[in-house]
Amino acid sequence: MNRKLRMGMVGGGRGAFIGGVHRIAASMDGLIELTCGAFSSEPGKSKASGADLMLPPEKCYGDYEEMILTEKNLPEGERMDFVSIVTPNHMHYGPAKLAMESGFDVICDKPITFTMDEALDLEKTVAATGRVFALTHNYTGYPMVKQAKKMIADGKLGKIRKLVVEYPQGWLTDKEEDNNYKQAIWRTDPERSGIAGGMGDIGTHAENLAEYITGLQIEELCADINIMVPGRLLDDDGNVLLHLNNGAKGILYASQISAGEENNLRIRIYGELGGMEWAQQEPNSLIVKWHGKPMEIYRTAVGNLYPVTKAHYRIPAGHPEGYLEAFANIYRNFALAVIAKKEGKSPDPIYDFPTVKDGVRGMQFIQSVIASGKSQQKWVKF
Amino acid sequence: MNRKLRMGMVGGGRGAFIGGVHRIAASMDGLIELTCGAFSSEPGKSKASGADLMLPPEKCYGDYEEMILTEKNLPEGERMDFVSIVTPNHMHYGPAKLAMESGFDVICDKPITFTMDEALDLEKTVAATGRVFALTHNYTGYPMVKQAKKMIADGKLGKIRKLVVEYPQGWLTDKEEDNNYKQAIWRTDPERSGIAGGMGDIGTHAENLAEYITGLQIEELCADINIMVPGRLLDDDGNVLLHLNNGAKGILYASQISAGEENNLRIRIYGELGGMEWAQQEPNSLIVKWHGKPMEIYRTAVGNLYPVTKAHYRIPAGHPEGYLEAFANIYRNFALAVIAKKEGKSPDPIYDFPTVKDGVRGMQFIQSVIASGKSQQKWVKF
Amino acid sequence: MNRKLRMGMVGGGRGAFIGGVHRIAASMDGLIELTCGAFSSEPGKSKASGADLMLPPEKCYGDYEEMILTEKNLPEGERMDFVSIVTPNHMHYGPAKLAMESGFDVICDKPITFTMDEALDLEKTVAATGRVFALTHNYTGYPMVKQAKKMIADGKLGKIRKLVVEYPQGWLTDKEEDNNYKQAIWRTDPERSGIAGGMGDIGTHAENLAEYITGLQIEELCADINIMVPGRLLDDDGNVLLHLNNGAKGILYASQISAGEENNLRIRIYGELGGMEWAQQEPNSLIVKWHGKPMEIYRTAVGNLYPVTKAHYRIPAGHPEGYLEAFANIYRNFALAVIAKKEGKSPDPIYDFPTVKDGVRGMQFIQSVIASGKSQQKWVKF
Amino acid sequence: MNRKLRMGMVGGGRGAFIGGVHRIAASMDGLIELTCGAFSSEPGKSKASGADLMLPPEKCYGDYEEMILTEKNLPEGERMDFVSIVTPNHMHYGPAKLAMESGFDVICDKPITFTMDEALDLEKTVAATGRVFALTHNYTGYPMVKQAKKMIADGKLGKIRKLVVEYPQGWLTDKEEDNNYKQAIWRTDPERSGIAGGMGDIGTHAENLAEYITGLQIEELCADINIMVPGRLLDDDGNVLLHLNNGAKGILYASQISAGEENNLRIRIYGELGGMEWAQQEPNSLIVKWHGKPMEIYRTAVGNLYPVTKAHYRIPAGHPEGYLEAFANIYRNFALAVIAKKEGKSPDPIYDFPTVKDGVRGMQFIQSVIASGKSQQKWVKF
Repeated sequence: MNRKLRMGMVGGGRGAFIGGVHRIAASMDGLIELTCGAFSSEPGKSKASGADLMLPPEKCYGDYEEMILTEKNLPEGERMDFVSIVTPNHMHYGPAKLAMESGFDVICDKPITFTMDEALDLEKTVAATGRVFALTHNYTGYPMVKQAKKMIADGKLGKIRKLVVEYPQGWLTDKEEDNNYKQAIWRTDPERSGIAGGMGDIGTHAENLAEYITGLQIEELCADINIMVPGRLLDDDGNVLLHLNNGAKGILYASQISAGEENNLRIRIYGELGGMEWAQQEPNSLIVKWHGKPMEIYRTAVGNLYPVTKAHYRIPAGHPEGYLEAFANIYRNFALAVIAKKEGKSPDPIYDFPTVKDGVRGMQFIQSVIASGKSQQKWVKF
Repeated sequence: MNRKLRMGMVGGGRGAFIGGVHRIAASMDGLIELTCGAFSSEPGKSKASGADLMLPPEKCYGDYEEMILTEKNLPEGERMDFVSIVTPNHMHYGPAKLAMESGFDVICDKPITFTMDEALDLEKTVAATGRVFALTHNYTGYPMVKQAKKMIADGKLGKIRKLVVEYPQGWLTDKEEDNNYKQAIWRTDPERSGIAGGMGDIGTHAENLAEYITGLQIEELCADINIMVPGRLLDDDGNVLLHLNNGAKGILYASQISAGEENNLRIRIYGELGGMEWAQQEPNSLIVKWHGKPMEIYRTAVGNLYPVTKAHYRIPAGHPEGYLEAFANIYRNFALAVIAKKEGKSPDPIYDFPTVKDGVRGMQFIQSVIASGKSQQKWVKF
Repeated sequence: MNRKLRMGMVGGGRGAFIGGVHRIAASMDGLIELTCGAFSSEPGKSKASGADLMLPPEKCYGDYEEMILTEKNLPEGERMDFVSIVTPNHMHYGPAKLAMESGFDVICDKPITFTMDEALDLEKTVAATGRVFALTHNYTGYPMVKQAKKMIADGKLGKIRKLVVEYPQGWLTDKEEDNNYKQAIWRTDPERSGIAGGMGDIGTHAENLAEYITGLQIEELCADINIMVPGRLLDDDGNVLLHLNNGAKGILYASQISAGEENNLRIRIYGELGGMEWAQQEPNSLIVKWHGKPMEIYRTAVGNLYPVTKAHYRIPAGHPEGYLEAFANIYRNFALAVIAKKEGKSPDPIYDFPTVKDGVRGMQFIQSVIASGKSQQKWVKF
Repeated sequence: MNRKLRMGMVGGGRGAFIGGVHRIAASMDGLIELTCGAFSSEPGKSKASGADLMLPPEKCYGDYEEMILTEKNLPEGERMDFVSIVTPNHMHYGPAKLAMESGFDVICDKPITFTMDEALDLEKTVAATGRVFALTHNYTGYPMVKQAKKMIADGKLGKIRKLVVEYPQGWLTDKEEDNNYKQAIWRTDPERSGIAGGMGDIGTHAENLAEYITGLQIEELCADINIMVPGRLLDDDGNVLLHLNNGAKGILYASQISAGEENNLRIRIYGELGGMEWAQQEPNSLIVKWHGKPMEIYRTAVGNLYPVTKAHYRIPAGHPEGYLEAFANIYRNFALAVIAKKEGKSPDPIYDFPTVKDGVRGMQFIQSVIASGKSQQKWVKF
């Protein structure tokens, strides 16, 4: 390609959080430019938001249908290449389906949809249209996560026996949905989030990260799903026992009332030969605790890391990369797949990203964990 | 008192681990001297072990009955004052009961007994004889654990909502009981450990620490109890969901196959106002993560700590105290209670220690957690 | 402004390191787009480099003079707005001076120039032309550095007594300049780096950070400047005692042969009321060790930080920002100043950045420290 | 030996700090018992202090001469075996000399004496009498310090190039000598401390640790010695550049006005192959940062440590040992040397301890560093 890919965004208007993250991530590696958007369901707000981003008014659409259908009819040299969907959960399915059916590739925030049925339908749509579809489970974009996954796949830890993945946050300690706090309001609203609150918002990240790194699958689970803040409508804390498909045991928890915690996603994996620990708040370190040998700390850009690891950082050792860079890795890899398709090439598997399958699995997780939380039966199949 | 208390030890002969810990802990603060022992059930080994400790042969008894009954008949100026029991679990009950009935105070390793019935009987014996009985749940002896307990009791965290206590070790990753490893052999043997392996050995420490710090009680639990090393006879990994008596939710896990972990007991507690974290491997720090304010790290001997905290360290800030000093705090506090009783005084509550009640509760935990592990019902009352 | 600022880059062609950093930093906040460049002194390489960046060939100039003089004559709607200079040290002065004299603002890598005379001349040029000039001492762009500076200015630590700033790296442990390692070759070459090696490359960062955070100035120093790798031509290790202008004492060291270190810039400052510590490799934490009170850890986006701090991060707590984001803060603040000037407004002082004065001071530091290293006299005036 | 060694203590009466540390350290390993003391220069206080320690009045002497001369004349079965000297600096020489000349071995706190002449005289006395003499540079007693020393001696880091040893404390931030703070009063008093304050109290620890671990010697130094608290009589902060006898360069600093610091002795050593870091406040970890490979953390009791390391801890991995245990290692090793001498055997070199030579070298350090602090000449020979 001798030009940047053109991105049209759905959602992410003034006051949104994740839309800005997607825009920075998209622009990081010089492969993508934002050329249009339906930033808000209010046309005026959409245009104002686009103006903030220095887009001309005619590229700021009133809704996603207008954007997709208009852009579809533009000539190749002007048309957007793909759609980025950054709306609340209940607004993912519509634009994703229409975009793919209109010939556009899609990158979409998680969880993939509002309902399981929608997720399964998108899975079919991807298959039917052959479009590239990426889901922004951004935590899998960190270089040391890539290193961990490959070390485990290479058998460095031996057979995996135990997994602990935890995702405590404290930002919903108070009833922020009553405080005109936009992020809190939609995330605690069953009309926009779906059947799960924290389990959908961050539990799915934990589930995705755990299965991604280990290459294992959760087979059955036993969940204690709680609303700890009186009056809240969706879960804000959940503790889950896991059985994995190789016989390993595990714990997953996600909490948004862990007062004082920031965004403390952390995973520990133990095999027959050693343990491994990675924490998102210190993402450039991967701690490997060998059984009977000194522990090692693998660091971004230090030493002889795997090629897949090296492909996911930009700057030398000791120059910390963070959340935005990991998020950008998802966009970069998605962009490379879009370009490869345009050029009729196979994408390089080193540049992987979460797909519609991860999205479906995430919805299954939400369903299972919420069902288990309501059940008096101990184990629920995943 | 113008003399040291005289201690008689049951167990702790050559090759034992915890006996040496008890002896160092007992001697740390100059209040106790070892004057006799039944160090082994083999009389020759008992005498040899005593000689290592520079005891005269006549003070090295062939078994605990001989020791207790002989010492009982010695004049006040020569007789031991209390018995320290450091044998495997199945050998706690006999000497503890006989010692108390013979007029001796008792300090005993955990878990308190082999069976629940024995524990309840010891509880009655303590009541009937009025002896001082201490259980060495040594992790409650750390100064920053005292600080944490008092901060929570003072409401600094507000109402407690969430508890995570974990105790991963890696030392049973391999089947060490086949490797002539004494510590592993008895701990994995149902004849000597009882119905639980790791849950009794370290799970009870986690349970005791959690209830001690929070002042709450586990009300019901849901356990996944596992044997991860093929051929092992007792649990080496267990993951437990907790419901606490104030409505808080929790997770407890104890594992001895978490390869690469040392002795990583760690507790996190979240209330409405903030969270708290303490880790046994860095025991001189207590991390307090305030909701909406900078986190604080309380450090041993720094700043205006509670009197109860100050009563449990010996040296200035930055001079790290560790496991032996915390263990010694249990002995010191027990000794002060023994002395107070001898002098007809009330013991100062600041110098607390785990008692027979903690022992009974620990046995209830073992029973509940093992029963839950075998049950298909989700919740088991504690 | 209803359009992005247009950036022309000098240097940063294929194989360069810092050019890519500048481009990501420039694009991060949606205020700047790269529109032209003289990426290499070889015209073919310049064009190839520009093509990688999806620039049209006519915007890829053969040298900086061609770029500046050509762009100067373009109409306002097409002309670049400012020049970014990312060449080795000996190539800063020429383009910086010509750009400012041609009406362009300038952002330039550090150290500002090859010689002291050049630096002083640039200082005059800035004054004479009234252009905006920024120097990318990027470490001052971190939000917790802003927090530290303001806390000290507010007197939170009381009078400052002691300063320790250290910058160990290990990447020149081996004689990499013999290994065809581009970054090493020019940095160890007096023809391109100037009179200092590590002291210019990273020592100036340490000096700049120390004076920035404390608001103090180094008054005299005593330096031990070393070449530890045989055959190297410039210093790769230096240890310096400092006297500051308020009577405080300090230590500064910079080393590129500290094997195993990554990019471990770290500063500690002690006043009458407490100490403060910030480390670039964990940039989202600011440790404040109060005298006689529990230490606090201030974290990016947690709690009630200063407005200046809040102005320098993008995403919520626990979503780590790193080196690129801090670098982008320099570009963002520079861009805001350029825009303010275009719009005839005063720039908001909250959006500060290093200026030509920092550049001159850095050159004075290089001169003093190298002179002191050669002197047998203890103290050299700064 | 079939009995404990008998210790007589000089100093360490009520209100002292280090005396209690020595007593705990001496008793830790069951080889030593306190049997007499001259705890204070006030006979009444000496007896009262001894009574606290449950010594009979006749074993509490009025001064060291009385103790040494009386004990000397006791029969072998009752006489003390060695003298432990825990007085302020100006009171080391007298009892040390008299004890050795009276046939007693000696263990003495640091710095060895008040003046250089005294130190040299003690060195002669040791040679003339053949007594065992240990100096409690306790920080060399930590197991991970032993590991570090042996790794360096084995060439694991290659040739050493750089050393940074720092010892910041904050406890003299305020003018505590005016606050009736016993520890502060004598340490800031030239009549009792000698020519140096902090440099003698903690600078000598830093010097001793650095030379012990590296096996190198400081050859010349350049010191900036400061009194930062107005009105104080001795140095409370000092920053020193070092040249080592193999060509390595270094920095040493010791400070007692680093507000908020506890007892933060820390050393970093860099060779051609990697760097090493050890911090006294987290003494069970030894960080090894390899050049071009993942960093390792060696931990007490984990993996295949050297025999000398294994000889210096007592309990399993993850059971933290601290300051008192390291101090006890000095006493244990001294006791083993005393016993070996009594039994006519050679001591095992694995059980090493600081000797009179370390004491003399420490006094030379004090002299050099204070002289350099007053000099305008850059380098002073050590």
